[in-house]
Amino acid sequence: MADYRKLWESLDMDLEKHDQLCAVLPEFYGDIYLSQENRPEGMNYYNFVVSEIHGFRIQELAEHRKKGGKVFGSFCIYVPDELIVAAGAIGVGLCGGSDFWIPDGEKVLPRNICPLIKASVGAKISGTCPYFQSADILVGETTCDGKKKAWEILGKYTPIHVMDLPQMKRGKDKIHWIDELKIFKDLVEKMTGNEITEEKLKEAVKLINEKRRVLQRLYNTRKSEVLPISGKDALLITQIAFYDDPKRFIEKTSELCEELEDRIKKGISVFEENTPRILVTGTPMAIPNWKLHHIIETSGGAVVCEETCTGIRYFERLVKEAESIEEQMEAIADRYLSINCACFTPNDGRIEDIIRLYKEYKADGVVYYNLPFCHTYAVEYNKVKEALDNEGIPVIMIESDYSLQDVGQIKTRLEAFFEMIKTSK
Amino acid sequence: MADYRKLWESLDMDLEKHDQLCAVLPEFYGDIYLSQENRPEGMNYYNFVVSEIHGFRIQELAEHRKKGGKVFGSFCIYVPDELIVAAGAIGVGLCGGSDFWIPDGEKVLPRNICPLIKASVGAKISGTCPYFQSADILVGETTCDGKKKAWEILGKYTPIHVMDLPQMKRGKDKIHWIDELKIFKDLVEKMTGNEITEEKLKEAVKLINEKRRVLQRLYNTRKSEVLPISGKDALLITQIAFYDDPKRFIEKTSELCEELEDRIKKGISVFEENTPRILVTGTPMAIPNWKLHHIIETSGGAVVCEETCTGIRYFERLVKEAESIEEQMEAIADRYLSINCACFTPNDGRIEDIIRLYKEYKADGVVYYNLPFCHTYAVEYNKVKEALDNEGIPVIMIESDYSLQDVGQIKTRLEAFFEMIKTSK
Repeated sequence: MADYRKLWESLDMDLEKHDQLCAVLPEFYGDIYLSQENRPEGMNYYNFVVSEIHGFRIQELAEHRKKGGKVFGSFCIYVPDELIVAAGAIGVGLCGGSDFWIPDGEKVLPRNICPLIKASVGAKISGTCPYFQSADILVGETTCDGKKKAWEILGKYTPIHVMDLPQMKRGKDKIHWIDELKIFKDLVEKMTGNEITEEKLKEAVKLINEKRRVLQRLYNTRKSEVLPISGKDALLITQIAFYDDPKRFIEKTSELCEELEDRIKKGISVFEENTPRILVTGTPMAIPNWKLHHIIETSGGAVVCEETCTGIRYFERLVKEAESIEEQMEAIADRYLSINCACFTPNDGRIEDIIRLYKEYKADGVVYYNLPFCHTYAVEYNKVKEALDNEGIPVIMIESDYSLQDVGQIKTRLEAFFEMIKTSK
Repeated sequence: MADYRKLWESLDMDLEKHDQLCAVLPEFYGDIYLSQENRPEGMNYYNFVVSEIHGFRIQELAEHRKKGGKVFGSFCIYVPDELIVAAGAIGVGLCGGSDFWIPDGEKVLPRNICPLIKASVGAKISGTCPYFQSADILVGETTCDGKKKAWEILGKYTPIHVMDLPQMKRGKDKIHWIDELKIFKDLVEKMTGNEITEEKLKEAVKLINEKRRVLQRLYNTRKSEVLPISGKDALLITQIAFYDDPKRFIEKTSELCEELEDRIKKGISVFEENTPRILVTGTPMAIPNWKLHHIIETSGGAVVCEETCTGIRYFERLVKEAESIEEQMEAIADRYLSINCACFTPNDGRIEDIIRLYKEYKADGVVYYNLPFCHTYAVEYNKVKEALDNEGIPVIMIESDYSLQDVGQIKTRLEAFFEMIKTSK
């Protein structure tokens, strides 16, 4: 790894604390990822990205900023990448997936709040996440109580803009959301000094749609009876999609897809025959939160799809290509409002998605993953379970944070769940 | 107490389970309320109301319904009483303040969610709250994640309408909120069959403002150096305001106010001199949640004001009287949007309120009360504490549910807090 200390220093990072973080990640990644057998060759690119997670890409952001470019940090798939890209800016997902940041988050937040929020805030205020440090502005949203209020605290440390996502999906809510997109567009134009023209927006829509298409292609390989890639590798790729350069990401992921499609033809699977196929649904998993996937795939299961924000919800629906700015803005609004997050009431579309994906991915069971204290997903479990019971689809709820204390217990529960699936098959 | 069993039966209540509830409340109330010395005579009315909490008022609701009248149940001070009253309907606050209902709530909700929500849902599905059973429709809102999603579950058992409260207070949010009020107005008119005319709405606005004024008058007596009423009695009165007949409530509370004002003239206080005066701020307290006030007032403190939804926020601001329906609807929107709930971002108005009330009520310290897992208020504590520290105002955070297990620990913490206040006075 190149020496990035000067870069990190220029970003006002806490180098000593950051060293502690950098010291643990490689072994952690090695144990979970590099230990896998028969990985696709194409995963080497993502290994490289992870090994350079606080280096190479941060360098690119620094070069972009040196030329006057802006970086927008975000936490949520409702923040429209298209508008950021159309103004020549870069959008990056922010840190929030490690226990490492939680003690710092708990300095300003209550303990009984979602670990993703505590880790995000901790990552910023500890000065150990170079993505936070590279962002000229953070873009928050009102998708949950915890985040909505945490932005107010983050706002003490860094500029932040909050988008008010409606809580329903009626006609009036779409109008409200289009307004919110316009406010964001104005902000992006003002910050970058670049006008978002019809042409620029069209190009950006095309690019982001292309990124979505390559992820769809990747996920399509997981529908096969022959599973050419592990669930945790697929998760990693989606996680990386949040901050990698879109063009490079598309190119590298296309290459991988070719390899995976070839594997399917040749019948090369990374799992034994009859491994229970699991659809994971629920709350997002930020890097390096690979805990649930790792437990599933070392307990006799294979993850075939994620109905989460770091899965299907991120890329399943495309923005309709349109002409005028107004039509394009409406198409963007439609696409983002079509995401079925538990923050909406009602949110029956998510139940339809889960049942549909269960069938499309030939899953044998559903693991409902919930970050502790995420009320929207936790409460919604009641309706999801009822619907899955009606369909005869096995489901288990796993609520877990980033600590490793409950790994044994989760493993035991999942092994019993997989056993039950196998015997009833 | 009259025999209401037939009435309860007609409301499809679980009589056996309800008997268990009725068996514990009188002793609980007696210990907390009737044990107080030197209570104002006027409290007898509220004693009566509590003793008849599932009887007399329920009988009134039943008679109203027999004549074709409708009852609207609600959980939140953003639901506009004016529109309900203007259509000749009755609005009542719903149950949710007792541990008794929590096991039933936990049958359908996660355990790590606010006790108010669990108790409310439990009260409905256990069939032991006659207010729930008397409501023709429940009116929910999107003030927090837990409630927003709990309505979906409640909706399986009873008709429910959800109002989408915006999360910010910009011009566009006001427009959105006026729309939401119009949708609610249409619903109320449709359900009752009564048109909400200019005149009817004016009358309703006047009536509800009058109810607010009498509560303001009550609270004004607590600004006096001589405290003529305990904090827990004042809390009880506000709680009763949510479901009592408005006209009777105004009359009875006016009578009490005269007595209290007379007490002030005569120097009759219910507390010893130099008792630390406490402003309580935070989450709502539904009947029979008198826990915090009881602990404070048996640990050497006196509660002088509640900056909560079962306090000041419920009545401090009036609806401006206006002419046309449009102007009146806007005035109603303005009034409700002026409430400073932690569900808004930002919510700096609440900080201003706390500091102002602290001064107006000559408080010596602030107790920040939080129901567990209420993220909005829990996270907002960070900014409130910072502001109070800057003002040199002592503050302590008490997070507590309805169980009695932590009473000793809270008492110890509060005694130390009051001691600290006294020595620094």
